[in-house]
Amino acid sequence: MKIQIINGPNLNLLGLRQLEIYGSQTFDNYFISLQRKYKEHDLFYYQSNIEGEIINKLQAIGFTFDLIILNAGAYTHTSLAIADAISSIQSPVIEVHISNVFRREKIRHKSFISANCRGTISGFGLKSYELALLSFLIN
Amino acid sequence: MKIQIINGPNLNLLGLRQLEIYGSQTFDNYFISLQRKYKEHDLFYYQSNIEGEIINKLQAIGFTFDLIILNAGAYTHTSLAIADAISSIQSPVIEVHISNVFRREKIRHKSFISANCRGTISGFGLKSYELALLSFLIN
Amino acid sequence: MKIQIINGPNLNLLGLRQLEIYGSQTFDNYFISLQRKYKEHDLFYYQSNIEGEIINKLQAIGFTFDLIILNAGAYTHTSLAIADAISSIQSPVIEVHISNVFRREKIRHKSFISANCRGTISGFGLKSYELALLSFLIN
Amino acid sequence: MKIQIINGPNLNLLGLRQLEIYGSQTFDNYFISLQRKYKEHDLFYYQSNIEGEIINKLQAIGFTFDLIILNAGAYTHTSLAIADAISSIQSPVIEVHISNVFRREKIRHKSFISANCRGTISGFGLKSYELALLSFLIN
Amino acid sequence: MKIQIINGPNLNLLGLRQLEIYGSQTFDNYFISLQRKYKEHDLFYYQSNIEGEIINKLQAIGFTFDLIILNAGAYTHTSLAIADAISSIQSPVIEVHISNVFRREKIRHKSFISANCRGTISGFGLKSYELALLSFLIN
Amino acid sequence: MKIQIINGPNLNLLGLRQLEIYGSQTFDNYFISLQRKYKEHDLFYYQSNIEGEIINKLQAIGFTFDLIILNAGAYTHTSLAIADAISSIQSPVIEVHISNVFRREKIRHKSFISANCRGTISGFGLKSYELALLSFLIN
Amino acid sequence: MKIQIINGPNLNLLGLRQLEIYGSQTFDNYFISLQRKYKEHDLFYYQSNIEGEIINKLQAIGFTFDLIILNAGAYTHTSLAIADAISSIQSPVIEVHISNVFRREKIRHKSFISANCRGTISGFGLKSYELALLSFLIN
Amino acid sequence: MKIQIINGPNLNLLGLRQLEIYGSQTFDNYFISLQRKYKEHDLFYYQSNIEGEIINKLQAIGFTFDLIILNAGAYTHTSLAIADAISSIQSPVIEVHISNVFRREKIRHKSFISANCRGTISGFGLKSYELALLSFLIN
Amino acid sequence: MKIQIINGPNLNLLGLRQLEIYGSQTFDNYFISLQRKYKEHDLFYYQSNIEGEIINKLQAIGFTFDLIILNAGAYTHTSLAIADAISSIQSPVIEVHISNVFRREKIRHKSFISANCRGTISGFGLKSYELALLSFLIN
Amino acid sequence: MKIQIINGPNLNLLGLRQLEIYGSQTFDNYFISLQRKYKEHDLFYYQSNIEGEIINKLQAIGFTFDLIILNAGAYTHTSLAIADAISSIQSPVIEVHISNVFRREKIRHKSFISANCRGTISGFGLKSYELALLSFLIN
Amino acid sequence: MKIQIINGPNLNLLGLRQLEIYGSQTFDNYFISLQRKYKEHDLFYYQSNIEGEIINKLQAIGFTFDLIILNAGAYTHTSLAIADAISSIQSPVIEVHISNVFRREKIRHKSFISANCRGTISGFGLKSYELALLSFLIN
Amino acid sequence: MKIQIINGPNLNLLGLRQLEIYGSQTFDNYFISLQRKYKEHDLFYYQSNIEGEIINKLQAIGFTFDLIILNAGAYTHTSLAIADAISSIQSPVIEVHISNVFRREKIRHKSFISANCRGTISGFGLKSYELALLSFLIN
Repeated sequence: MKIQIINGPNLNLLGLRQLEIYGSQTFDNYFISLQRKYKEHDLFYYQSNIEGEIINKLQAIGFTFDLIILNAGAYTHTSLAIADAISSIQSPVIEVHISNVFRREKIRHKSFISANCRGTISGFGLKSYELALLSFLIN
Repeated sequence: MKIQIINGPNLNLLGLRQLEIYGSQTFDNYFISLQRKYKEHDLFYYQSNIEGEIINKLQAIGFTFDLIILNAGAYTHTSLAIADAISSIQSPVIEVHISNVFRREKIRHKSFISANCRGTISGFGLKSYELALLSFLIN
Repeated sequence: MKIQIINGPNLNLLGLRQLEIYGSQTFDNYFISLQRKYKEHDLFYYQSNIEGEIINKLQAIGFTFDLIILNAGAYTHTSLAIADAISSIQSPVIEVHISNVFRREKIRHKSFISANCRGTISGFGLKSYELALLSFLIN
Repeated sequence: MKIQIINGPNLNLLGLRQLEIYGSQTFDNYFISLQRKYKEHDLFYYQSNIEGEIINKLQAIGFTFDLIILNAGAYTHTSLAIADAISSIQSPVIEVHISNVFRREKIRHKSFISANCRGTISGFGLKSYELALLSFLIN
Repeated sequence: MKIQIINGPNLNLLGLRQLEIYGSQTFDNYFISLQRKYKEHDLFYYQSNIEGEIINKLQAIGFTFDLIILNAGAYTHTSLAIADAISSIQSPVIEVHISNVFRREKIRHKSFISANCRGTISGFGLKSYELALLSFLIN
Repeated sequence: MKIQIINGPNLNLLGLRQLEIYGSQTFDNYFISLQRKYKEHDLFYYQSNIEGEIINKLQAIGFTFDLIILNAGAYTHTSLAIADAISSIQSPVIEVHISNVFRREKIRHKSFISANCRGTISGFGLKSYELALLSFLIN
Repeated sequence: MKIQIINGPNLNLLGLRQLEIYGSQTFDNYFISLQRKYKEHDLFYYQSNIEGEIINKLQAIGFTFDLIILNAGAYTHTSLAIADAISSIQSPVIEVHISNVFRREKIRHKSFISANCRGTISGFGLKSYELALLSFLIN
Repeated sequence: MKIQIINGPNLNLLGLRQLEIYGSQTFDNYFISLQRKYKEHDLFYYQSNIEGEIINKLQAIGFTFDLIILNAGAYTHTSLAIADAISSIQSPVIEVHISNVFRREKIRHKSFISANCRGTISGFGLKSYELALLSFLIN
Repeated sequence: MKIQIINGPNLNLLGLRQLEIYGSQTFDNYFISLQRKYKEHDLFYYQSNIEGEIINKLQAIGFTFDLIILNAGAYTHTSLAIADAISSIQSPVIEVHISNVFRREKIRHKSFISANCRGTISGFGLKSYELALLSFLIN
Repeated sequence: MKIQIINGPNLNLLGLRQLEIYGSQTFDNYFISLQRKYKEHDLFYYQSNIEGEIINKLQAIGFTFDLIILNAGAYTHTSLAIADAISSIQSPVIEVHISNVFRREKIRHKSFISANCRGTISGFGLKSYELALLSFLIN
Repeated sequence: MKIQIINGPNLNLLGLRQLEIYGSQTFDNYFISLQRKYKEHDLFYYQSNIEGEIINKLQAIGFTFDLIILNAGAYTHTSLAIADAISSIQSPVIEVHISNVFRREKIRHKSFISANCRGTISGFGLKSYELALLSFLIN
Repeated sequence: MKIQIINGPNLNLLGLRQLEIYGSQTFDNYFISLQRKYKEHDLFYYQSNIEGEIINKLQAIGFTFDLIILNAGAYTHTSLAIADAISSIQSPVIEVHISNVFRREKIRHKSFISANCRGTISGFGLKSYELALLSFLIN
């Protein structure tokens, strides 16, 4: 199966910044361990700080991949355009968040994309990504 | 490990009502299959339509169980008292929803309990419960 | 025909309290007169102050009764769980209120259950119950 | 007894338009059947699309009729002037709606006139008018 | 000078209805006394319950009269169309209210027309009309 | 083809009032030039300041005309009854505005009728009417 | 009769500042002309920029004066304490404004004191004070 | 005198949970010391996590007890039904809170029951209960 | 112990105005009786209608007194500056109200100062002051 | 004349996605037919999913082109920066939408750019672009 | 040049209170060092806790001073009267804040006076005053 | 010291557009003069219309530069992602605005980034940048 993880703005700094919220592991390290653990599947990783590039990526893979795991970061709470992109493609998209967004500022309690995603997984640290994967693999 | 699943109001009708939203499997059947699949753990199940009884249950097990998986149903969106109960106990609580609550009426977009739970899993059908379990078991 | 009247919180005090709003007749007396007048039908009466018990009752009778007449009292304005229960069952439910709720505090102008009920009858004193019954009997 | 039914804007198209909401019977036919069924009473019918003409009618009959049954249509939700007219007259006014307004758009959940009417009956199709009549006739 | 008084909906019932708010004098009597007191001026009086007729009147006289005294009644609080009519004409318009609208329901605290009128006089009973007249006559 | 233009309140003053917003051409002159330019079609023009008369007109022609071009003026922003009339009829209705309503006061940013119309054309001066016509004629 | 005019903050700069809003006459000059015109009455004038001093003044004269004419300036829109003072005293208070407050910023559309005053006169320039006086003198 | 203390949801965990907010004393210990200190009065204690049981208790004692001291916990902020129960009974009810609710989340700043209680005492730790008692005993 | 009572605007009229809300006892009389009853403590009393003078007083005594009992009157609901003063000083401040503010207008339901005070006592008439005192004296 | 069409995010998928909303024609095909029909003018087409690139384009052509037709897609409802760009340039900009945005979710009812555009055309399918063009060409 | 610094309520406690927010330097010391550093200019300092006295000061110097640096403290967020005073005078006023007000409670995010001041400087500790001065001195 | 100025969308048009708001100097000219005046420091300048490129820049320099001066233009009011980037880096960021944003439309009164910046300087024209620099250089 072809599975794409997409990370939004500032998530390239994972493990470098705000360790008290996001922990000290870099996403690259985490991604490599995830690939190893699920090596029977094709896992890909993409990150961008630019809203429109995330849309470009969603469109590029959204008709051929089996699953998209999306952590849109701050764009989760401001981007109707990404929400539209999710509606426009055929691959299922799962929304994940590392932190429990409901413990943070009020603006992070509202997601533009939840309604367009298959489901949401929030608050399990980096494990949120693996749970999104498992939501697809378990029966 | 001791793990308790708690279901809130109307979830006893699962598989009987609103099949287009919740599917046709009864929770009892699902729970039995879950017990079998994870038989190395002690899984328990409780359901009540009464807000205060859910609080009673949370208090009764909340200092000895390893994990509580809570689908508070409609009380998710109206019960500050259940949210307080979650804060009052020591066992970690994970919030689950069968349907994608963000596709439904606006009142279901707001959860009183998310901020007090470890994490939230929403929209994966009955699989949401298993993912909650896995969030605890995977490393 | 089997018809169930369900009264919510504090309606057991009818005829005893706040006579200027609700009048001085007890509901028991009223119910007996109603049974006599419509003796060709099976009328039942249930009252509870507990939200979840009202849900229990709705579930217990909601697949076999011909009509449910529900005055949910204050829960009308706060209970999404009762609204869900109405959606979950098959018997038609009619919402009634003794007083004209729109003349009272603002919170009583909003009903969680109206959209899920067949219709609403409000402001006719105890006659509201009989009108609900007649809505079913007249052609 | 002298009883006036007043219908507001677009209700002259009943039975012709939006049949899925309002059904296929014209109001004229319904009114004739109602007159026959309650022939011991004087029933009158008036319809206007003009807000101020409804006020004129309310004032004209509002000091001599025994009952006014008012379906103000869309003016229910926008007309403070009709609400004032109801307060200004002596005849009791009952608010009726054919459809369950609480299932429709949000603006239809708020009524300017409910607080000034004796009671409200909503959601019973054309039967709502007869129930309003019965609210006056039954003891 | 040519001066027009325009009264909006339900003000034709002055002296007949809601005496505790508006007093017991009919407007016709008051108007005659006003004409006598200011007989050096041409005073005219018009009342309508129909929003659009008030607009028609404003347009008909609004380019030739010296002063228009407008009590738009309930339309004060709901009619953008009357507010537009006031902006469209050349004669100065003064907004008057018999009762102190700020002591009544919240919806009456907001006026659509105040900003388009020269000034507002509210709460002096029928004297409000004479004060509007005097605002024009005194130096 | 039979095409009806309907203008709402105060639009009879076009070319006479508020020239800085609406320009100096009267609508009658404009309409004549429009008739000449599109003389292969039957163009009709109606204006009223009365909300209910606009509804009457919509109902009268709304089952036989090919197109209705509606500038409801201020009623655009306050009339649910006109919106209902548009839903009740079969002829397509196009909403037009002479000025760019989004540059004016906030209340004019919200339209009751847009959702019920086929489309909206706003801000092109009197050309807005012709564009509405063209929306029907071009392929 | 004893009549007190009270002016609130910044009104001591009348005739000196913001002439386009308030005109070029100083209040002292205006007050002298008013005293002359109504010399059969005792007119007094007080101004303060301090909210509490206005309250002190209202309390000091509020049990013996026949009339208080109050232009509370910006405190109109922020002072519950002045509103309370008006309720606490026995002399009637009339609210006046020089400019048409409804043409200015939104915060000036809401008055804390209107409901506690006998009436409101707004938008007539300095004449507003004289009209307040006349509201008391005319029959 | 007969005095009833009623505690709402989660207050049975006092002294066990969230010690930084509520302190480390159990309510049972506190209650015993209170009984001793005021042994000339009959003090009773009741706690429930179930909204409707609190209503049942209020109704059961609300016509014979001299004073009810109610800490409704989270139900303070969500229960219109308890507020109604307080209005329905005759015994005076005093609302108490251990913590200063105004320092906590916004939802706790609004109380459904304050308006129906005689008075409110908030923020004095367990002393709040004794102050409620003293409010009744001191002259 | 040194204890200061501070009363805000219009409370100097206690016993003179609005007797139905505040009762007929003057505060001076009440204060004298309080001093007598608690003569082992140094009780002081200060009242001002001026917001800034209350701040001055709080600052003057706020580093040396043992307790401040503050009824800020209407400033409770509008003064962030007094709230800041309470935060700036060291003496504990208790907020008291004579009437049950939650039964009055909506603006009085919100207090700027509650979160900065140790606790709040509201609705016990003049006894509220003594209860504040007792909150400090009882163990 | 030089005319630029600019399409915003996800509009590159036109004819591929959500056919029930946008129809099955690709924009490229439509654009070619438009160029042919108006071949006496220079028509250009640009699409980007990136907000800032749309701004770049507007700036690049906004001082030399005769007309810009802009469908900003989802950025219509979230981008103040595009609105600023429109204000910053000299070429007239016309806002178009394919679907009737007022029939869709509430967030799409508000446009950041309407006030800065010359006019708005919404709901005519791909014809909306041609109407924008015609708004410029017809006299 | 003549330059006046005005500090509002509680700022006299600078260096004494809430050191974690405002630092430990008293304003008097800071002001002396500022005078020394800019001794070619006439610097004056004024502080008051009384809203109206700040207005008095602004009026007294506002027609002759070259610059006014105003830290209105809590009145920034509640005083329309001070905002009016700034509009009424001729000297330019610069708004300064010691702390970053946008990190504090929501009510401090809104300033009544910003729109009337030349500019705002917030968050630089006591340096904010010097920066305001420099905004005037640098070219 | 290394100091970076970052300008957001449309600020590349400074001196070319909307001269009445922003003045006629280009930013390039201003920047050169600033470099000359502060030649002992390393000043850099970057501008982008793309939200994500601003984030990229902040991340690239945000761990090594001594100061970042950010005018995020319209993104100030819509970008949570830039706010997150500011939180993620170590260099201090100062928010500047050329115009007084509080005199412009309401949406510009709210800044997403203020709370994450060290301080804010708004309304001093191009001088705002130099003041930001000075906030760092003066002692």
